[in-house]
Amino acid sequence: MIWIVLGFITSILAIFIALSIGYIVSKTDAGTERMREIAHAIQEGARAFLKVQDLYLMIFVAVMAIVLYFTLGVYVSFSYVFGAIFSMLAGVIGMEVAVKANVRTTYFALKEGMRKAFLVAYLGGTVMGLMVVGSALAGITLFYWIFDDFQVLLGFSLGASSVALFTKAGGGIYTKTADIAADLVGKVELELPEDDPRNPAVIADNVGDNVGDVAGMASDLYDSYVASIIAAMVIGYEMFHNFGLPEIYIYFPIVIAAGGIIATLIGLSWVKIHAHEDPGSSLNRTTLVAVITYIIILYIFVQWFNANPAIFWATVAGLLAGAVMGYTTDYYTSIEKKPTQKVAEASVTGTAVNILMGFSYGIMSIVPGVIGVAIAMLVAWYISVYFGLYPIYGIAISAIGMLGIVGTIVSADAYGPIADNAKGIAEQAGLKEDVISLLDRLDAAGNTAKAITKGFAIGAAALTVIALFAAYAEIVNLQLLVDVINDVNNQVAVYPGRILNLVSPNVVSGLLIGAAMPPIISAMLILAVGRNTEVMIEDIRNQLRERPGIIKGTEKPDYARCVAIAEKGALKELILPGVTATVAPIIVGILLGIRALAAFLAGSIATGFLFALFMANSGGSWDNAKKYIEDGHFGGKGSEAHKAAVVGDTVGDPFKDTAGPTLNTMITVMSLIASTFAPIIAMLALFP
Amino acid sequence: MIWIVLGFITSILAIFIALSIGYIVSKTDAGTERMREIAHAIQEGARAFLKVQDLYLMIFVAVMAIVLYFTLGVYVSFSYVFGAIFSMLAGVIGMEVAVKANVRTTYFALKEGMRKAFLVAYLGGTVMGLMVVGSALAGITLFYWIFDDFQVLLGFSLGASSVALFTKAGGGIYTKTADIAADLVGKVELELPEDDPRNPAVIADNVGDNVGDVAGMASDLYDSYVASIIAAMVIGYEMFHNFGLPEIYIYFPIVIAAGGIIATLIGLSWVKIHAHEDPGSSLNRTTLVAVITYIIILYIFVQWFNANPAIFWATVAGLLAGAVMGYTTDYYTSIEKKPTQKVAEASVTGTAVNILMGFSYGIMSIVPGVIGVAIAMLVAWYISVYFGLYPIYGIAISAIGMLGIVGTIVSADAYGPIADNAKGIAEQAGLKEDVISLLDRLDAAGNTAKAITKGFAIGAAALTVIALFAAYAEIVNLQLLVDVINDVNNQVAVYPGRILNLVSPNVVSGLLIGAAMPPIISAMLILAVGRNTEVMIEDIRNQLRERPGIIKGTEKPDYARCVAIAEKGALKELILPGVTATVAPIIVGILLGIRALAAFLAGSIATGFLFALFMANSGGSWDNAKKYIEDGHFGGKGSEAHKAAVVGDTVGDPFKDTAGPTLNTMITVMSLIASTFAPIIAMLALFP
Repeated sequence: MIWIVLGFITSILAIFIALSIGYIVSKTDAGTERMREIAHAIQEGARAFLKVQDLYLMIFVAVMAIVLYFTLGVYVSFSYVFGAIFSMLAGVIGMEVAVKANVRTTYFALKEGMRKAFLVAYLGGTVMGLMVVGSALAGITLFYWIFDDFQVLLGFSLGASSVALFTKAGGGIYTKTADIAADLVGKVELELPEDDPRNPAVIADNVGDNVGDVAGMASDLYDSYVASIIAAMVIGYEMFHNFGLPEIYIYFPIVIAAGGIIATLIGLSWVKIHAHEDPGSSLNRTTLVAVITYIIILYIFVQWFNANPAIFWATVAGLLAGAVMGYTTDYYTSIEKKPTQKVAEASVTGTAVNILMGFSYGIMSIVPGVIGVAIAMLVAWYISVYFGLYPIYGIAISAIGMLGIVGTIVSADAYGPIADNAKGIAEQAGLKEDVISLLDRLDAAGNTAKAITKGFAIGAAALTVIALFAAYAEIVNLQLLVDVINDVNNQVAVYPGRILNLVSPNVVSGLLIGAAMPPIISAMLILAVGRNTEVMIEDIRNQLRERPGIIKGTEKPDYARCVAIAEKGALKELILPGVTATVAPIIVGILLGIRALAAFLAGSIATGFLFALFMANSGGSWDNAKKYIEDGHFGGKGSEAHKAAVVGDTVGDPFKDTAGPTLNTMITVMSLIASTFAPIIAMLALFP
Repeated sequence: MIWIVLGFITSILAIFIALSIGYIVSKTDAGTERMREIAHAIQEGARAFLKVQDLYLMIFVAVMAIVLYFTLGVYVSFSYVFGAIFSMLAGVIGMEVAVKANVRTTYFALKEGMRKAFLVAYLGGTVMGLMVVGSALAGITLFYWIFDDFQVLLGFSLGASSVALFTKAGGGIYTKTADIAADLVGKVELELPEDDPRNPAVIADNVGDNVGDVAGMASDLYDSYVASIIAAMVIGYEMFHNFGLPEIYIYFPIVIAAGGIIATLIGLSWVKIHAHEDPGSSLNRTTLVAVITYIIILYIFVQWFNANPAIFWATVAGLLAGAVMGYTTDYYTSIEKKPTQKVAEASVTGTAVNILMGFSYGIMSIVPGVIGVAIAMLVAWYISVYFGLYPIYGIAISAIGMLGIVGTIVSADAYGPIADNAKGIAEQAGLKEDVISLLDRLDAAGNTAKAITKGFAIGAAALTVIALFAAYAEIVNLQLLVDVINDVNNQVAVYPGRILNLVSPNVVSGLLIGAAMPPIISAMLILAVGRNTEVMIEDIRNQLRERPGIIKGTEKPDYARCVAIAEKGALKELILPGVTATVAPIIVGILLGIRALAAFLAGSIATGFLFALFMANSGGSWDNAKKYIEDGHFGGKGSEAHKAAVVGDTVGDPFKDTAGPTLNTMITVMSLIASTFAPIIAMLALFP
């Protein structure tokens, strides 16, 4: 009990520090009148979007809460609503600070130079990082404390994931609609530079960076983080209630997570740029310190609690898999590495070859990720078997290991769009070239962090959903397959994995349909971006036609109109994929049975993981291939190769920032829906 | 026994008719001197490629034969070699006739008009169609007759699939290298029309149509056809030896296949164009007659043999699933339907939007296919359970049902490139506009047939590999999982499906790695096309630079150099993906165990099926979107929209003609490798 209280205190500490940093950042000077004005427009746009999005979300949450109330009772419904609210709160507060930190970064760059500017941008990001881990752990400990019931915990996790699905899908559609429309009309047709104030879509584009990259990525990792902890706790419950194993396994995930928050806080205290240091290496140092501290803390905790040593090793395996995923993503998308340079080179032959190369290298990039996750899973399992720990629990723990330092990861990731926005504000405010180039360096430093975060987020989601898959198998087996378990009783003692027979037409059908889900949802999202972009391009062209003064710089474009289009379209378009992902597991479970539903989840995990990695890395590679050419290679800016690379970049935009990131959340939501509704599905299912 | 003889006689009859038609076609007049010359160049190129490819293949086959000799004995090795030779022979003879029929089609169009020209083209295609089914069934009956052993039959099937893998991958790389290089330099840079004789790559392009579309598609369906029959026979063996069910189930697949050949022959006799009829509807009529005849024959056979009525219904379910797949492919790729027109419309907004739309609609097109295959599988299974037939056998039978009329399908498919080549010859020979437009109509008629064939081939491959997966599960379970089977003994009586537990880290790893294989092989093949194309483009530019007379039409380009580049590159590049697909199942089986290998197969089936469909349909849609614009929509030829659509078409080329079609064969090869080497893998495996 004392440990739950300490876990809760740690989470409150993280929230307190986050709010304090937020307060300090918002009290610094926000710069000149013009800068304030631009920053204000971005803030307004971001707030307006979140406000409308949260309204839609509230309707969805209310409907789901009513469904949960009538199917699983008042407590699950209650925890679901709170899971959603906690996640939304973390997102809103984190983004409020991010949209304040951007203009202050610009101002510090103007007045104080690189080191202070970097600090402001980074501190702005840490608010989001700490809010995510703090509010997640606070919610979990609170609900565990009060209810001590795994259905209620699953409800909390499902609430967080519902928010994430909407935020990722909606934010992803928003940001890419604005980005592509701004590029196609502004850069390609009118040949305006990036972030030019004459482009009517420029504010929508800046808002998009915040709602997509800051709020979106944060809610993605928030939901993986919550789901990984709760998956382990659910398996802990089963171990306690069905195998009579000690209760410590239920709450130990909270202890591990609290250790991760402490490690994150220690890591963050190391952030500063030493003399002549690149800002990128400061970011990397923070992560490294957090990882090492985390491993030490874990070792101490496992000793202290006299817990099974397999827990320590499983966590380390998860952390290492995370590192592999992160660095692979960096390798395949970095401007300094061969794959991206090959994609740039292919642009010389033509647009089609650029597309084909980026597509293919993106796919090749899944190899190390697949092997890394497979090895982490195998190590976690067999080390658990060796030390006599319930092996499914070991896999769940390795997912928490990967996500333990998620506070650091989110902080470094949120830094990226803050620096990017700071540069945008500087350009729109017409600041001098040296300030812009300084902010450019800060922006570039965020790119590696961002690439690593993406790989990391995908790997974490994969391990988490594998843990959730195991949790689902536990839940349905224990309730329904007691006969099968008794049949293979002598196996249960050694090998407590449940039987899910793959040689059945229902199971194979479930696998096929599940495998088809991630590509289908991706296609829906890409089509949504396409439709929405066309509307916005139309509007930009109309604005430029109606008011010829805009292009001459004598008249201000109506930024709000583009913001409104992006917003309305995104919210309209996220409904179909959102509802499909929510309803599909229930339909498959009822029509084909609970075993087919398990295979459905396995199939969706496999392709979801592959597509998320491939789309993130193809998109990143196309993006950087364009930048590589802009740096003066293969003819440089304006050459035929550059035009080809711009097309590649545009194709990659919805891959890497809309469809790819939504997949993580989507497979988590589907797994949670399956687990939460398992009793209902089992009751209604047409097949066993 | 009598039935085996009759099956053998039917197959010999098909071969005899094929050879007779081939003889008749080759005896007709081959046209003017200039036409003969062009046709000769294409023939030479195709022969040269097949000769070198078959040489490489022979080396590969020899190595595999030695491996099989030392691991599984002389008979399996022997049947493997013959499976390869039979498949190669069907390809060589079919293509010999196809490259003769093309110029004759041109000549008949010039001299006799549409109806006779259509007949020559179609008869040319039927030679391939009948050779495929004839030699496949002849080989199977012969080896069953002599050896009566399922390992030997699996060896035969593996031989056929090895050939198919090389032919699809090699032919696919060849044809797209030539096509893309010819387009990028010829059409885009020099603005030459299609099939212009001044383009040095024109002959390579025409050769490519034959080696890719004729020989490639034929060997693809050859291997699915053989594998589906043998998978059912293997399951029949298990039923006979382990459950004491009647022996008829072993040879009944041969009877069903023979019925399909008879139906195909009857269907082919209906081919002729009625007055004022579109050639496309004649093609469709042939297929329809074959399907109806096949259903009637099946019904009679099942009654006659007093076989289980479930066999009839399972076959019909397979046939219907094939129809769904075919018509869906047509819907998503036809120039007259909404998806393709939307892709064309998107080209107006820009190249990137065209790419994104084509990509997304291609993915959306998997929905009906997935549902169709799932329903066919469920129907086959539960109808078998209802009628008391071993349900896995029912699924295998439904695959044969889908492939029963493959002779008709291959004939209609081979017609396409013959008509296409005929048009090319007419253009190079400078024939009059009315002849070319007549041949254009013949060519267009082939497109629907081709789209349907592709969907059909993918669906057939999916059902076949599911049957092979079941056969593998049978083989390894019966040898190794007897303990598990005894544990759930009371289940075996009702539900003889074997237990393959999905809740194990090895099995989940196997699933993940298996699911990653098809995208990885696709990426390898696309990268291969990219590399090879760059070499060829370089050479075309050199030729044009060295000999300025070429472009003025005063000098002949060196066609053979381009042919040699396409050939050398294709054969070099197919080694890596070919060997990867062959070796991966063995490595996974040994490192992770035979259960993980089963999951590996399941994963590769799921993504292989999805990627094959998506790539075929995206590619088809991009292709026709371009044609739609060329027909005068959205600005027509030469507009910005057209340029965007050309890029989309080029991206789609290796999708639909290299990577996509190879996947069918790849998953078949991996399943057969797993089944054939099962005893060796089980012996060496590190895990149970």
